[in-house]
Amino acid sequence: MKIAMAQLNYHIGNFEGNLNKMLASVEEARQQGADIVMFGELSVCGYPTRDFLEFDDFIRRCQTSVDALRAVSHGIAIVVGAPTRNPVAAGKDLYNSAYFLYDGEILGVQHKALLPTYDIFDEYRYFEPATEFNVIEFKGKKIALSVCEDIWNVGNENPLYTICPLDEMMPQQPDFILNISASPFNYAHAEARIHVVRTNIERYKIPMFYTNHTGSQTDVVFDGGSIVMSPDGKVFDEMPYFEECLRVYDLDAVVKGGLDRPQPKDKIRLIHDALVEGIKDYFAKLGFKKAILGLSGGIDSALTVVLAVRALGAENVRVLLMPSQFSSDHSVNDARVLAQNLGVQYDLIPIQPMYEAFEAALKNQFWAHAFNVTEENIQARVRGTLLMAMSNKYGNILLHTTNKSEMSVGYGTLYGDMCGGLAVLGDVYKTEVYELARYVNKDREIIPLSSIEKPPSAELRPGQKDSDSLPPYDILDKLLFQYIECRQGPNELIALGFEESLVKRVLRMVNINEFKREQAAPVIRVSTKAFGMGRRMPIVGKYLS
Amino acid sequence: MKIAMAQLNYHIGNFEGNLNKMLASVEEARQQGADIVMFGELSVCGYPTRDFLEFDDFIRRCQTSVDALRAVSHGIAIVVGAPTRNPVAAGKDLYNSAYFLYDGEILGVQHKALLPTYDIFDEYRYFEPATEFNVIEFKGKKIALSVCEDIWNVGNENPLYTICPLDEMMPQQPDFILNISASPFNYAHAEARIHVVRTNIERYKIPMFYTNHTGSQTDVVFDGGSIVMSPDGKVFDEMPYFEECLRVYDLDAVVKGGLDRPQPKDKIRLIHDALVEGIKDYFAKLGFKKAILGLSGGIDSALTVVLAVRALGAENVRVLLMPSQFSSDHSVNDARVLAQNLGVQYDLIPIQPMYEAFEAALKNQFWAHAFNVTEENIQARVRGTLLMAMSNKYGNILLHTTNKSEMSVGYGTLYGDMCGGLAVLGDVYKTEVYELARYVNKDREIIPLSSIEKPPSAELRPGQKDSDSLPPYDILDKLLFQYIECRQGPNELIALGFEESLVKRVLRMVNINEFKREQAAPVIRVSTKAFGMGRRMPIVGKYLS
Repeated sequence: MKIAMAQLNYHIGNFEGNLNKMLASVEEARQQGADIVMFGELSVCGYPTRDFLEFDDFIRRCQTSVDALRAVSHGIAIVVGAPTRNPVAAGKDLYNSAYFLYDGEILGVQHKALLPTYDIFDEYRYFEPATEFNVIEFKGKKIALSVCEDIWNVGNENPLYTICPLDEMMPQQPDFILNISASPFNYAHAEARIHVVRTNIERYKIPMFYTNHTGSQTDVVFDGGSIVMSPDGKVFDEMPYFEECLRVYDLDAVVKGGLDRPQPKDKIRLIHDALVEGIKDYFAKLGFKKAILGLSGGIDSALTVVLAVRALGAENVRVLLMPSQFSSDHSVNDARVLAQNLGVQYDLIPIQPMYEAFEAALKNQFWAHAFNVTEENIQARVRGTLLMAMSNKYGNILLHTTNKSEMSVGYGTLYGDMCGGLAVLGDVYKTEVYELARYVNKDREIIPLSSIEKPPSAELRPGQKDSDSLPPYDILDKLLFQYIECRQGPNELIALGFEESLVKRVLRMVNINEFKREQAAPVIRVSTKAFGMGRRMPIVGKYLS
Repeated sequence: MKIAMAQLNYHIGNFEGNLNKMLASVEEARQQGADIVMFGELSVCGYPTRDFLEFDDFIRRCQTSVDALRAVSHGIAIVVGAPTRNPVAAGKDLYNSAYFLYDGEILGVQHKALLPTYDIFDEYRYFEPATEFNVIEFKGKKIALSVCEDIWNVGNENPLYTICPLDEMMPQQPDFILNISASPFNYAHAEARIHVVRTNIERYKIPMFYTNHTGSQTDVVFDGGSIVMSPDGKVFDEMPYFEECLRVYDLDAVVKGGLDRPQPKDKIRLIHDALVEGIKDYFAKLGFKKAILGLSGGIDSALTVVLAVRALGAENVRVLLMPSQFSSDHSVNDARVLAQNLGVQYDLIPIQPMYEAFEAALKNQFWAHAFNVTEENIQARVRGTLLMAMSNKYGNILLHTTNKSEMSVGYGTLYGDMCGGLAVLGDVYKTEVYELARYVNKDREIIPLSSIEKPPSAELRPGQKDSDSLPPYDILDKLLFQYIECRQGPNELIALGFEESLVKRVLRMVNINEFKREQAAPVIRVSTKAFGMGRRMPIVGKYLS
């Protein structure tokens, strides 16, 4: 028996696009002699589908796509993910289902039992959990069909759910497992995925075919990395990251095993590739081609423009250099050198005239007050307005360059440098920004070394440095990681060796700046806990603030 | 037996504040001879608690508050809501619980079984559903203790859950029901609440004491309206809306019944009061006193400033009048008259100098392009920058004045008129804005009639009117209501009588503007479906767009 896995880039709500992609894959798999071709979770409609699932019309269209696939399933079985209506009145109205289609019929439907409702996931918002588990018989084999999370409750000390769906199926003695997934990227996830598939294999001693999505959906990036694992626990194959891919596997060869072909997993390279994919697919799915951003000469905008060029091409990226009276000459020069290195169009627009116009307009209100953060913010907002004007006039999308360290502590101006459609580095700590910049420069100096080596500064007042108001980034980032990613509270942080006064100060900064993050652009998620849908914090809360 | 209900305004994560309030209520109830005093759901920590619940430290502090209440429960039983750790490893780590404390002991704990995970609610993100249901015996009575949603699964044709927790308790023959709730306001909710309490009473024939929160938590407003219902299905008492309140009820009198005292429920008055409460409590809980906003002479900013003055006092509200060359004299005059009517400080700052500075700065980039929405947006962003400068310099919060009709179709400038900490009218359709303005003017003309009666215009280009680019608001709002609140798809909308081309155009406008709403200020929720946490839509989705 031959099994084809199609790792595809779906687009939420783009029924025609998703269906056409799957139809082409069915034909390709058929030509390669596959008996089964499998797609990802909710592949007819894309994932995370969010509240589109609340529209009857949307569900009808999902069913239409399932019907269209059923109609072409003569001689080849198709495994596809779609929402299914719950026929029972009590409970949620939908199931998250895997369909097994063959010869124009629905041979079986397995609903998902474990509904991830944490981090970016909201599945219990829409779906009723499955309570029935049956293998599907096909060409003399028994198949355990499962959806994503249903294989993730094994081997945990503190399991999230009270059942393991595959345990329920094992009395029926399946020959292999098909798992259709939509399992988003984070820099540790490819490793975690192999680990959990292996834990299942060790428990059930049968092979698994695990098919993931690729592409991105605004904040959520899918890295592919679909897995075929043999009963010996070895990685028979792992599909490429961040690429569509269709491969056909011979079941006997997989059962025999012996091959072990996992891909290398370098954290910084994975983050780099995920950010490029995140930019590229955001533009593609919105139907935009061109990006604009401000280059300050600092490392964050430098890294962002490199990623943008890699995602969109130099001809589609334009930058503004917008020095103020506080900008150093070397900053402007670094920005210019970088633009030239990359071959992107750049314009120099000094902001002083607009800044002075604001100063003059507000002199009656401000004359008795000293220069403070207000005037710093006016500069940032003049820049934001210039960039948005370019974005509006030329129909390009402004990229937001603030990094995760800054977003955490609120070091950024709302409606100023926080303008933009996509926060490229919003899930990348400053120390990781440095690592990424060095990775970009590994073969030649693309980002000027002085952008990497000089002390970070917003250059919004004379001689300003980030270190005037923030702890050193190597300490700050470690503390933020423990608080944000690991949810460690103040006592745990102090026990980890952070100074009490620093803990108090940093946690307060994080918590009182929720109002800024609430209005920030969507962040490309690369860690296990990104700002946005995955981290839901009250704004008026008074905890640790 | 005497039962005290304390309807309080809790503050998320403010353990000391919440505890002190409850301790004061315990003493007051004790002095009034109460045998039991009850508080709201998750009253130790506030609601919606969101991801603070993922911090061990936070849960510890919740338990410390429960302990402090237990310590003062001598001679009076205290019913309080708090998260409880799940002692079983499998499943979520927490329960959402009601504690029954008496004489220094925990007499009983009832966990919540029905975990709302829809609209703004995310409870299955944190909590394991209860599976055990036991009445509490106290002074010869049997008490059915329940938490919020656990009484809401009765009497629905399409129930969300597969069990009714009180059904499980009825074999134990309870004498009355205590329900601790955190049931947020919408303009139809006070009516719905009475309806659902009555449905329970008709089913179980015993009285219910239902205690709600009051106050607001950023977007979510609690209106109080706690209910005591007798077995005859009559409203023995309904506590005031938007006010803290403690009242003591004699159980025998409630059982006897015969009284029916529901409060009047006028939609526009309820929305008005909710918006005032929403502003007031947002400022109070963030520790701010003063607001700023721009007055254009239009109806949205006019209504917003009235609400702000009612919430904060005229002395705490300041406005900017920022005419451009496109502003009509009557608009500036209407704004000035309104400011004078209200007695708020106002400053006139024409935006032309800054607008011209931007024009000059961008002339190399823009000379070959015609005036378009870019220049309109620059004006809006100059205003946003001026307002934010005032906000920064004087430490006041900028109020956002965009209404729900505009937010729906993206008629508003991101980082321009969409600047602000709180979107006061973001859940109020334009036609409701008119109704609210007339309500405000019911005794005397506070908002100039000309602001109400003139055709709506953004005044960003000569002779501009909203009706140039939008359908008439009375039609638009009806269509938006069906799409947003009622989740009707295109076919259903056409079947309701809306023109096909209009449906297509409006749905597309709503769907392609998700990126703007994603970055909007939090919206005070007054309807059954507000923008923000309650409506989760993909940005790159391609459904109906």
